[in-house]
Amino acid sequence: METRLYTSLLMDYYGNLLTDKQSKIMEMYFDENLSLGEIADLNGISRQAIHDTIKRTSQQLIKYEEKLGLKKEAERIRDIREKLLTKADEYEDPELTGLIKSL
Amino acid sequence: METRLYTSLLMDYYGNLLTDKQSKIMEMYFDENLSLGEIADLNGISRQAIHDTIKRTSQQLIKYEEKLGLKKEAERIRDIREKLLTKADEYEDPELTGLIKSL
Repeated sequence: METRLYTSLLMDYYGNLLTDKQSKIMEMYFDENLSLGEIADLNGISRQAIHDTIKRTSQQLIKYEEKLGLKKEAERIRDIREKLLTKADEYEDPELTGLIKSL
Repeated sequence: METRLYTSLLMDYYGNLLTDKQSKIMEMYFDENLSLGEIADLNGISRQAIHDTIKRTSQQLIKYEEKLGLKKEAERIRDIREKLLTKADEYEDPELTGLIKSL
């Protein structure tokens, strides 16, 4: 299930690089929580084909993260942002806080 | 020449998504400033093939930026970072400045 969540999160970063067909199937599976059988019926293709598409696309997403690291970088920025917000509390400066929040 | 600089900058963000052959030719052209003829000689392929690879790869990089916008996002973060550093000067707080610099 951890892999499932991870793959689902990677969709937020690399979904735009997928084909329309890949996106559609991944969204049905990960966001709408449809079963392989349901997705197969809705798309008029076999359950096996859906399974293969999800598997292949998941591997593709993991490869993108290995190469570009967008999720990792977003988490790094988010972590610094949190620390900055805590730090900025000391100064009660709306301009400072606003700038940090715009990160 | 603006397109040339733009393409060269995109290599920093999306170079990892290219094949080894594409990377090599793009680096020879954009970083080492070799001519098409020189790159052709060094790789034992035609000048036309080098030209086509550079053109196709440049279009691929532009498409990645349209889809993922990494360069644009990096510039957005850099802009906020600069404003935060200026703002933080008011407080002379090494922890605050250090956090911002780690962005």
